[in-house]
Amino acid sequence: MLTRIDHIGIACHDLDATVEFYRATYGFEVFHTEINEEQGVREAMLKINETSDGGASYLQLLEPTREDSAVGKWLAKNGEGVHHIAFGTADVDADADAIRGKGVRVLYDEPRRGSMGSRITFLHPKDCHGVLTELVTSAPQESADH
Amino acid sequence: MLTRIDHIGIACHDLDATVEFYRATYGFEVFHTEINEEQGVREAMLKINETSDGGASYLQLLEPTREDSAVGKWLAKNGEGVHHIAFGTADVDADADAIRGKGVRVLYDEPRRGSMGSRITFLHPKDCHGVLTELVTSAPQESADH
Repeated sequence: MLTRIDHIGIACHDLDATVEFYRATYGFEVFHTEINEEQGVREAMLKINETSDGGASYLQLLEPTREDSAVGKWLAKNGEGVHHIAFGTADVDADADAIRGKGVRVLYDEPRRGSMGSRITFLHPKDCHGVLTELVTSAPQESADH
Repeated sequence: MLTRIDHIGIACHDLDATVEFYRATYGFEVFHTEINEEQGVREAMLKINETSDGGASYLQLLEPTREDSAVGKWLAKNGEGVHHIAFGTADVDADADAIRGKGVRVLYDEPRRGSMGSRITFLHPKDCHGVLTELVTSAPQESADH
């Protein structure tokens, strides 16, 4: 069951400049940064609030590490902006299977590694009224790599 | 101070079909619907979670009521997808003034009426790394028109 807005993924050309915009304009601070070579992104997570399911909602700022990554290609086509939205669940495997069973294309056969040790998958935007939609199960807190 | 992700605004061609997609796929239910003639939208709010500031996070599904509305024009250009993101604050007037003072264009001179009796304003996406950004102060709960 999806129980929170986990994050909004925002593609940008210059991660440092975009982090600085969110800090200077709104006071949002960086909670975590990492490079995900598989996804081809360098990213910063800004924690905005905690949520009633025990999780939190973040902005995820994404800079491509290579032009041929999914985010790099998206950015070349669309320019900076909202790239995807993500819902949090306690069981991404079960939710992905249930959603696949409803005829929505799930992009990975098995969930992959996302931010902060989470497990993630994506749903095809053409099956989701134009919205690239991610499902996320956070890492257990003791193993999260902040 | 912005204390939550208040909502993600998603533009769609057919509100009823999109509401049904979110219900059938994820189990999200409609919390509130309204028509905002000033904005030229018919909308449905789906409540996803409550937030640590005493508010909540929603998906806001938006169907234009006329082609020349902002959302209608956006949809004709971009197709269905994420139209804007919104941060919640206890004082949209003060935050809008402070952000204007930092050189970010605020689209309204004074906040206007948003969903469920809220007061809202928007920041120019070109000043926000491509993200149309809304600031929202919810109505006091006793006067919210659910």
